[in-house]
Amino acid sequence: MILVNGDSKDVIPADDRGLAYGDGLFETIQIERGRPVLWKRHMQRLQAACEVLGMGRIDSDILLRECLSISLDQERGVVKIIITRGSGGRGYRPDSEWQPRRILSFHAWPDFPETNVSKGIRLFLCSTPVSSNARLAGLKTLCRLEQVLATMEWDESQYSEGLMLDDKGQVIEGTRSNIFLVKDGVLITPVLEASGIKGIMRDVIVELAHEAGITVQERNIDRKELLDADEIFVSNSIIKLWPVREYQEKDYNSRMITGRIMQLLEQHLSDYE
Amino acid sequence: MILVNGDSKDVIPADDRGLAYGDGLFETIQIERGRPVLWKRHMQRLQAACEVLGMGRIDSDILLRECLSISLDQERGVVKIIITRGSGGRGYRPDSEWQPRRILSFHAWPDFPETNVSKGIRLFLCSTPVSSNARLAGLKTLCRLEQVLATMEWDESQYSEGLMLDDKGQVIEGTRSNIFLVKDGVLITPVLEASGIKGIMRDVIVELAHEAGITVQERNIDRKELLDADEIFVSNSIIKLWPVREYQEKDYNSRMITGRIMQLLEQHLSDYE
Repeated sequence: MILVNGDSKDVIPADDRGLAYGDGLFETIQIERGRPVLWKRHMQRLQAACEVLGMGRIDSDILLRECLSISLDQERGVVKIIITRGSGGRGYRPDSEWQPRRILSFHAWPDFPETNVSKGIRLFLCSTPVSSNARLAGLKTLCRLEQVLATMEWDESQYSEGLMLDDKGQVIEGTRSNIFLVKDGVLITPVLEASGIKGIMRDVIVELAHEAGITVQERNIDRKELLDADEIFVSNSIIKLWPVREYQEKDYNSRMITGRIMQLLEQHLSDYE
Repeated sequence: MILVNGDSKDVIPADDRGLAYGDGLFETIQIERGRPVLWKRHMQRLQAACEVLGMGRIDSDILLRECLSISLDQERGVVKIIITRGSGGRGYRPDSEWQPRRILSFHAWPDFPETNVSKGIRLFLCSTPVSSNARLAGLKTLCRLEQVLATMEWDESQYSEGLMLDDKGQVIEGTRSNIFLVKDGVLITPVLEASGIKGIMRDVIVELAHEAGITVQERNIDRKELLDADEIFVSNSIIKLWPVREYQEKDYNSRMITGRIMQLLEQHLSDYE
């Protein structure tokens, strides 16, 4: 089911600026027993990003009402919210009278193997780089073509996620996840000042680790550091946390910090529910 | 008028991957007496870009038929062609059975002041950077949010185009145009190996300049070089060529090479028609 500005539809106007220019944002939210998980954090991120793009205030009450309405009676699933700068003519400059368009869709819960959590995943190294752009860094914009191309590089029966570097060879993120490494008990994740998306689950993990007294570093990470790491894991709002068991033919067997984060996360999310 | 896969429609499916991820390309083509200008070049660029994105072969005969059909009896105008990777589910990976979607729309000829050509334009310096990504560099993808944000930086009654730099402060392009500078009789334009769009008109100008014995350099350009240039101009398929008369409070009065290129271009395009 899809709601376009509140109406049940499966089409949008062909002159939408989201299509024409990627002029918009999205959020991907877990639904659990008909309710969105970590809703406030998603709305805070969306609002902050709308401000960066000059798209003004979102009405989170309307979004919540529509999210609940398409998730009604669903035990589990995913709601995707797209906000675009609405319809427009040809030309990058928005019309002075532009009106935002919101597109909410419900999707089945993805059927990831349980072993992604219990045994960990194999992480592929993508050659498609993440774009660098300090103005857009951190935002979940509709411009995701590089993630599409990166995803097409590997066989999904062999790998569960792909790592993306920037043009300088620095570690940025997974195609659909944030990445963390552990070295000598310190949790390290890319700072994402020039590229990448700041995930909701990334924020939660950083906060939980801080609270638990784990030293956290948000900084630039050279790709060589991954091969030197004790543990690696990836995270997002849907998968939560997957340990990496193999990357570049190296096995990562330790779960010292990863296991603790997984426990903290499970506790936090069940508290939340 | 809009044609979606050949049908006259003003909507597209809400699950189009062009909307979801900017997963597609576009071309903007001048229509002159019902005929597309520089059609072959547009189709060559589109085909080359489709190959980079793994989108296979385009059928340029169908595109031409549809382009002519929406331009019928139009003295002058613009046809925009969007090609997306069609409909898809949630997730970056395309379905194995994906089918491209083509969206052609006719637009009125933009009413630019004649003085943009005769007197030249004022060029604004945008603070929004162009993204760097060697894989996507040169391509006219649907991911154009940075151009939208850059365009919103200036008042269009004051400036006719905005210059965009990359994160390193190198000159890349105008928001909707390529940029050229002239120094000591040499025509210089950014090489666009790591970012920017390679315009059709840029190619034509480089070729015409070569043929006319003007030395052309395609290379990285530091922003300071613009202030030291004798002449600056911008180009695209619709505006053709606009001399820059003012940039960063400096006046550019010489038209030595720019004027010659304008003559060559006029000749070339009238030969073409």
